[in-house]
Amino acid sequence: MPHTYNAVIAQSGGPTTVINASAAGAIQAALRAREIGTIFGATNGVLGILQEELFDLGRETPETIEAMKRTPAAAIGSCRYKLKNLAESRIDYERILDVFKAHDIRAFFYAGGNDSMDTADKINKLAADSKYELSCMGIPKSIDNDLAYTDHCPGYGSVAKYVATAAMNAGRDTEALYTSDTCSILEVMGRNAGWIAAATGLARREPQDAPHLIYMPEAAFSFEKLVTDVKAVHAEFGRVFIVAGEGLKDDKGQYVTAETSGIGIDSFGHAQLGGVAEMLKAVIEREVGIKTRFNKLGTNQRSAMHYASLTDVNEATLCGKTAVEKALSGENGKMVTLVRAPGKRYQCSTALAALSDVANGEKCLPPQYITPEGNGVTQAMLDYVRPLVQGEAPVAVGPDGLPQYMRFGRKHVTKKCSEFNPN
Amino acid sequence: MPHTYNAVIAQSGGPTTVINASAAGAIQAALRAREIGTIFGATNGVLGILQEELFDLGRETPETIEAMKRTPAAAIGSCRYKLKNLAESRIDYERILDVFKAHDIRAFFYAGGNDSMDTADKINKLAADSKYELSCMGIPKSIDNDLAYTDHCPGYGSVAKYVATAAMNAGRDTEALYTSDTCSILEVMGRNAGWIAAATGLARREPQDAPHLIYMPEAAFSFEKLVTDVKAVHAEFGRVFIVAGEGLKDDKGQYVTAETSGIGIDSFGHAQLGGVAEMLKAVIEREVGIKTRFNKLGTNQRSAMHYASLTDVNEATLCGKTAVEKALSGENGKMVTLVRAPGKRYQCSTALAALSDVANGEKCLPPQYITPEGNGVTQAMLDYVRPLVQGEAPVAVGPDGLPQYMRFGRKHVTKKCSEFNPN
Repeated sequence: MPHTYNAVIAQSGGPTTVINASAAGAIQAALRAREIGTIFGATNGVLGILQEELFDLGRETPETIEAMKRTPAAAIGSCRYKLKNLAESRIDYERILDVFKAHDIRAFFYAGGNDSMDTADKINKLAADSKYELSCMGIPKSIDNDLAYTDHCPGYGSVAKYVATAAMNAGRDTEALYTSDTCSILEVMGRNAGWIAAATGLARREPQDAPHLIYMPEAAFSFEKLVTDVKAVHAEFGRVFIVAGEGLKDDKGQYVTAETSGIGIDSFGHAQLGGVAEMLKAVIEREVGIKTRFNKLGTNQRSAMHYASLTDVNEATLCGKTAVEKALSGENGKMVTLVRAPGKRYQCSTALAALSDVANGEKCLPPQYITPEGNGVTQAMLDYVRPLVQGEAPVAVGPDGLPQYMRFGRKHVTKKCSEFNPN
Repeated sequence: MPHTYNAVIAQSGGPTTVINASAAGAIQAALRAREIGTIFGATNGVLGILQEELFDLGRETPETIEAMKRTPAAAIGSCRYKLKNLAESRIDYERILDVFKAHDIRAFFYAGGNDSMDTADKINKLAADSKYELSCMGIPKSIDNDLAYTDHCPGYGSVAKYVATAAMNAGRDTEALYTSDTCSILEVMGRNAGWIAAATGLARREPQDAPHLIYMPEAAFSFEKLVTDVKAVHAEFGRVFIVAGEGLKDDKGQYVTAETSGIGIDSFGHAQLGGVAEMLKAVIEREVGIKTRFNKLGTNQRSAMHYASLTDVNEATLCGKTAVEKALSGENGKMVTLVRAPGKRYQCSTALAALSDVANGEKCLPPQYITPEGNGVTQAMLDYVRPLVQGEAPVAVGPDGLPQYMRFGRKHVTKKCSEFNPN
């Protein structure tokens, strides 16, 4: 490596409550490092690199960087731009290296999920092939908690705390008004993995507490089973509170749709992913005959800074800081992971996993975290998630009584490469 | 009035974050009053009175009563049982008086909205007709903020704080990912009044902040206008964040439906009330061609104790306390109101309004709170709502990292009347 060089940090994919905390941890470590001249932010993720939209994070105030730890979403900017394999997206990968070379960028910190780790890995390999000294380090980020090789992902603890609290709150609403609004459905994110839905099990301290039924993509779902389940809960408690992951699948692994629900494609032709709650509502109202309503938290679940997990914020910050420190110590092509110490007392430290390994893994809920009936979670799941929701992250409140978040001044550097048009 | 007598408190209609605080204020005042022997809770509102499901609130611990101020929804229990006029529902009204007489109940405290104030008023008049000494006092409750004769309703400040924060949070998410998920819609409650939607205007501290467009039932809505608005915002900011009240109406005062949207009744036949966000999404994706997603907060917006307004909690408690104190001082047939002192500094005190007046009133957003374009709110609206969201209500957190709420032991009193079957 040259004596001093520049670095870039980018955020990728769906934002989380704490991806800014990860970035802040990385930026603060980079600003402290003598080896790093300038730490750039790439506006809107890898798109920002491709389009050479870089800004100097060292010209932001220290207060702005620190306030990232209390600001949701992706302050540097994110995107869903997908790079394919080297053969198909070679122009993109080479462009990224050209931009890196133009700005003497020798360290790339990428906060994201599987796809992002794959991208970072490929950039890394191309750099090695072309003898360009570069360190690519991944920072885990996923509300879905589906990254392999890490005990859990920064972002998950906060969404877990939020959806469990949301189930608890809305569950009390259903309990208060069960003589009229008897059944409620809370739809949460999680297209392939049910970690988010499973976390709402924390809200059920007593059997009568919400949620009474939790449906996750990993457990085969059927509308016949739903009707049986709802009738049983209704008979026992007089009310029914259901949590449904957005990506429920049948016993053949196919997403449940309006057709499989028997509702008929005519009136629910649009109701596929993201419409799970509506399908369940329609079936319950028709087959069980109880009034049913639904809440769809949407992006509010991954941006709820006002009730984020302090544990999550701290671990996210640590992951960012560690990525930079490991790069400085010579590591390359790795993602920071979180390692939980064995034993009852929760202790968490960091380690590293190869980007290529993470890129090809996906961690779904293990069978022992789901009840045999497929409509709830086990004690093992609760023991897993409980430490991750501990502590309330501080919220900065403005004089208007609402949260106070930061934005960057964003002084973009002068472009040195030719113009780029994304395909 | 007899020297000592009993009292009953009931909660009605849709729960709020602070209706328990109102009840706690009333219960604590009643427990302190020498004139009141027993203060009963009516399980599930007026249904509990009709069915003689009463429990002794004096046998709950003081800690349980105090914890009501930090517990959302309606802990005593609520219902949507509607009593009509005296002629049509005479059996119900007489039954209520019979239950009151059987338990020597001479004071009735009813927390609810317009309909509940109407019910309380009719019970009061029937009692007077039959020479039964009874004091009926109303405690205002409405997230919709649509009660007349009061500056604002307990419950509104907390939902306002929550939806404004939700718009701020989800708005940051849209800002981070606008290159992919360009448009977001946040659907909030408010079937006839747009107070909740209007409160999200607080989130927009700068022009680029969410929400860029706010649609309220009081401003005539059209899909043509929507498309024009969205295109203009998209051109200016590159992203669009919309807040929509659930009960949008066209220029003839009719609720907008799938048919008026031009989507066609086939695929959106179900999309009427509660489905506004889906209709908007479908129209925007087709006519503007930008990816659009929506969040529907549902009952989570009225039960979000973890970010409630401290001002709201305190005023709700005050309203409950005042209702009891005024009854003890001889008032009858009144609802407690909140009065805002003139001037820049927010000061709020209580007064009384006749139940019959409140029952027949409905307070929608005044025209001067809505921008001439009908897609946003004015400074006057922001000045109105800002004081109501001040302060964060304390949240009791359990060892599992989630909120800790109370439940009653609920020792039901022995029934003295014949069985009742609600019609």
